[in-house]
Amino acid sequence: MSYKDISAKKRAERDSKFKPEWLVPEEELPGPEVLDVLQWPVSSGYLSASEIEITEAPIATIRANIKSKKWTAVTIAKAFMHRATIAHQLVNCLTEVFFDLGLEMAASLDKYYEETGQLIGPYHGIPISLKDNLIIRGQPASIGVVCLAYDPPSFTEEDESPNVKTLRSLGAVFYVKTSVPTAMMIGETMNNLYGYTLNPFNRNLTCGGSSGGEGALVAMKGSVFGIGGDIGGSLRIPSAFQNLFTLRATSGRLPGGGRAALVGLESVPSVQGPMARELCIVEEYCQIMTDLDKNMENLDVKFVPYGWRQDVDLPEKLTFAIAREDDKVHPYPSILRGMDIVIEKLKSAGHEIIEWDPTGQGEFDQLVHSFFTSDGGNKIKKLHEATGEPFFEFMHIYRDAKEISVSDLWDMQSKRNGIVKKFIKRWDGTAKLTSSGKPIDGLLLPTSPYSGAPLNKNQYCGYTSVFNGLDWPAGTVPVTRADKEIDLKEVDYKPKNDTDQLCYDSYDADKCHGGAISVQVVGRKLQDEKVLKMMKIVAQCCGTLDYWTT
Amino acid sequence: MSYKDISAKKRAERDSKFKPEWLVPEEELPGPEVLDVLQWPVSSGYLSASEIEITEAPIATIRANIKSKKWTAVTIAKAFMHRATIAHQLVNCLTEVFFDLGLEMAASLDKYYEETGQLIGPYHGIPISLKDNLIIRGQPASIGVVCLAYDPPSFTEEDESPNVKTLRSLGAVFYVKTSVPTAMMIGETMNNLYGYTLNPFNRNLTCGGSSGGEGALVAMKGSVFGIGGDIGGSLRIPSAFQNLFTLRATSGRLPGGGRAALVGLESVPSVQGPMARELCIVEEYCQIMTDLDKNMENLDVKFVPYGWRQDVDLPEKLTFAIAREDDKVHPYPSILRGMDIVIEKLKSAGHEIIEWDPTGQGEFDQLVHSFFTSDGGNKIKKLHEATGEPFFEFMHIYRDAKEISVSDLWDMQSKRNGIVKKFIKRWDGTAKLTSSGKPIDGLLLPTSPYSGAPLNKNQYCGYTSVFNGLDWPAGTVPVTRADKEIDLKEVDYKPKNDTDQLCYDSYDADKCHGGAISVQVVGRKLQDEKVLKMMKIVAQCCGTLDYWTT
Repeated sequence: MSYKDISAKKRAERDSKFKPEWLVPEEELPGPEVLDVLQWPVSSGYLSASEIEITEAPIATIRANIKSKKWTAVTIAKAFMHRATIAHQLVNCLTEVFFDLGLEMAASLDKYYEETGQLIGPYHGIPISLKDNLIIRGQPASIGVVCLAYDPPSFTEEDESPNVKTLRSLGAVFYVKTSVPTAMMIGETMNNLYGYTLNPFNRNLTCGGSSGGEGALVAMKGSVFGIGGDIGGSLRIPSAFQNLFTLRATSGRLPGGGRAALVGLESVPSVQGPMARELCIVEEYCQIMTDLDKNMENLDVKFVPYGWRQDVDLPEKLTFAIAREDDKVHPYPSILRGMDIVIEKLKSAGHEIIEWDPTGQGEFDQLVHSFFTSDGGNKIKKLHEATGEPFFEFMHIYRDAKEISVSDLWDMQSKRNGIVKKFIKRWDGTAKLTSSGKPIDGLLLPTSPYSGAPLNKNQYCGYTSVFNGLDWPAGTVPVTRADKEIDLKEVDYKPKNDTDQLCYDSYDADKCHGGAISVQVVGRKLQDEKVLKMMKIVAQCCGTLDYWTT
Repeated sequence: MSYKDISAKKRAERDSKFKPEWLVPEEELPGPEVLDVLQWPVSSGYLSASEIEITEAPIATIRANIKSKKWTAVTIAKAFMHRATIAHQLVNCLTEVFFDLGLEMAASLDKYYEETGQLIGPYHGIPISLKDNLIIRGQPASIGVVCLAYDPPSFTEEDESPNVKTLRSLGAVFYVKTSVPTAMMIGETMNNLYGYTLNPFNRNLTCGGSSGGEGALVAMKGSVFGIGGDIGGSLRIPSAFQNLFTLRATSGRLPGGGRAALVGLESVPSVQGPMARELCIVEEYCQIMTDLDKNMENLDVKFVPYGWRQDVDLPEKLTFAIAREDDKVHPYPSILRGMDIVIEKLKSAGHEIIEWDPTGQGEFDQLVHSFFTSDGGNKIKKLHEATGEPFFEFMHIYRDAKEISVSDLWDMQSKRNGIVKKFIKRWDGTAKLTSSGKPIDGLLLPTSPYSGAPLNKNQYCGYTSVFNGLDWPAGTVPVTRADKEIDLKEVDYKPKNDTDQLCYDSYDADKCHGGAISVQVVGRKLQDEKVLKMMKIVAQCCGTLDYWTT
């Protein structure tokens, strides 16, 4: 079978797993000229009032209504499955669909509650979506690669990712896996199995990647929240492109585990985490998943079971360093406006703002990427060669890579450590610039230069990858949306390099209208608890803590 | 200059730095037939009564006498310098000698105390020895390599290791650096610059390595304690061979930093830590050095500032899994007797003992070592080629190594992660074997198959390297000493492989008499606090908590 045949078969199988009663007839779907589809599932009339009430509800309401037996887990699961179905029809965000299994999980939770009067755990009856690479028993994990579509046809219970196992034991309902780019190594979501996943804020734009399907689905309210992963920005980019909350935690703090393309790569740590419409979901997930005693048996090898700190208190007035842009790529006008909003709101609330020096960030991004290609792209090439599927243009760094020696790798790792040291010093050095004489509390900068890039244009991930290289926790907070009336192209700007030029050229105020504008909140290694608290303050100042629920 | 000329020059320079008044005349030193030299500095009459009192005192006494002004920092420093001088004459354990600098540090501490009435920190006036690779301003760090003897001639303040900087700020007095094997990648201490460092328990034996000079010096009471490092057993082997306490902590928990030979190697983490005659010194060091707030500016890039847990409580009765031997090398009869003592003492105290299955440990040791040679030995070869210094027989794995590709390295790292997973499962699986139905609290096994190996015979580090591969905390506790009358060679034992044969052949009850017998106490990742508490219980049961101070 050719790669196209395998892809067609795989897509047909996926499509067959949707419930006909939940599918919108093809001819009733909005045409490609309808760009913002966020409200379409509601406005179209295909969801019932009850389904709308359930899928629009904050997690606290869902829990309260489970507890009071107003809603059963099955009712909730069906509502999210229906909405996920429509979301998929609009933006192509799902890979594996297993509604029947999800309904079985939900039914057994309802039975348990009925019989015992107890909820099984904090996620009892909560529909959670999973990025395609997470391993769940009974499903494959093709990670956007044709040759992995059926290899294996399904994973076993033994293989299941530690976080999936834990969430299952705490009552989660699983029913879909979400789309990723080929091998999960690009900042957009497109592959030869399933094609492109679009951004529901504006279907001209990419949903980002690699946890792009999650970003699109969660924004479409097709799940309560989702689990993604991040080795260069893969949680944060799609969260930023869809105005979601996420945290790329310090490596080891949250259990992970799942299929990787670059198996054995350790020069840059990969982490998994939640993507949600509510910051409280992200916070709670971090607390629950790091609970040492309950989850000992579910640890992944890289997990550091230190527990979650409850005793982190912020000063009343925070000090932030802010970089409106890094030293390589000038952001879209929309993103710069977003940064200005953040600066103004924080200042108004009495927080102190100083300038962050981004020198060297662009170069560090290149080093981080050179770790990804240090095997000469062999792993990625083999995955392509297995079926002859073509490389996407973005993936050429893997196709063109030359394998390096371990000596060279060691040199690169030393170089990275030197850069990390430099950044630690830079952070500590902010003590000289603050009124308190102490270093900053946090660092704020764009998550991406794009407020959602047009398809194939998300060519620069340096705003996020730097913090993978540093292994500093970094989260995203929604600010606002791009506006064609005010986010005008900067006609006088002269791009400073090719990547900057590509970014500059890709912006068109009309075409990018309505894209998400997000800010990245960064802390020092292991200050995950503090970053989450700073995210809350930034969101409160920006008025976006309830961005999705009001 | 030939490598021999450089070595001769370097040795002559070192020798010139001793104070003539502290040197024992050559002709008065004991001959090579005197094997146990532990008491010689005292019994020989070369130390004054006051110097003996100071150098034999527990750290608590030293502190009390500093505080009460009975002893000044200078007096204390001189006593330890004198004793270190004699120790060096007996076992050849020092590399860099900077008594004048140490006396200046001590004098300035005395002045500070005189003027302010305050001690500068918990290490005020405490003489601490440093493994040769630790960077201290004003000194070189040749790490047993001829071409590094003067490259650089001395390091700057900027280069200083974070732990050295921190200890300095807390009042430590530095005055010596201690010997290491060539490039610190062997379990014995010998190199072409300085020759062999001998074991003061029995000068037929090696002091172990790579922190071998520390092991010998601390056992000779030439410092209050020392700082070494461990990537395959380098803290634990010399600690075991000299019956000292140490902890190879989970990577990242203690600040480190210093010169490495395999710069950029990260597949196996290197950690630094204390080696001491008192367990309380090890415990206190861990607490002080992980204190987040005070030492923020001194962090090394791999440091994870979790802080030290004060709330770790042990159950009254502990459960240990014990492996008297691993699956590759059968220990000396002395070591097996030591394990039997430990088992019996723990059982008598009411603790539960089950068997640990060591299957796969020998193979894992090989994988750990293959990471060390994954650059084809290039770094080590270049260090040798620079001056033409010859390879020691032990180092042939570096000379003969072939460089591998990053693809192969990634495969090896994956393999390692799979093994780690297997060991986690094995640990968790002990729940089926314990009376409580819970997994074991700790794992006990020999630190080495040797109770001190004869020179050139310490060919197997698998008992320690496995826990570097697993990144599990592991400490050493003294048990007793080898006894030629009872630790008879096992005439009927049939070695199971070449390494086992080498170990078996190297044992001679007479020649190995008096060697140190130690036990290794191991916990799960990040359970460093628990391991230290278990070490205390093991030492209490074995009656060795005061091994050096009574």
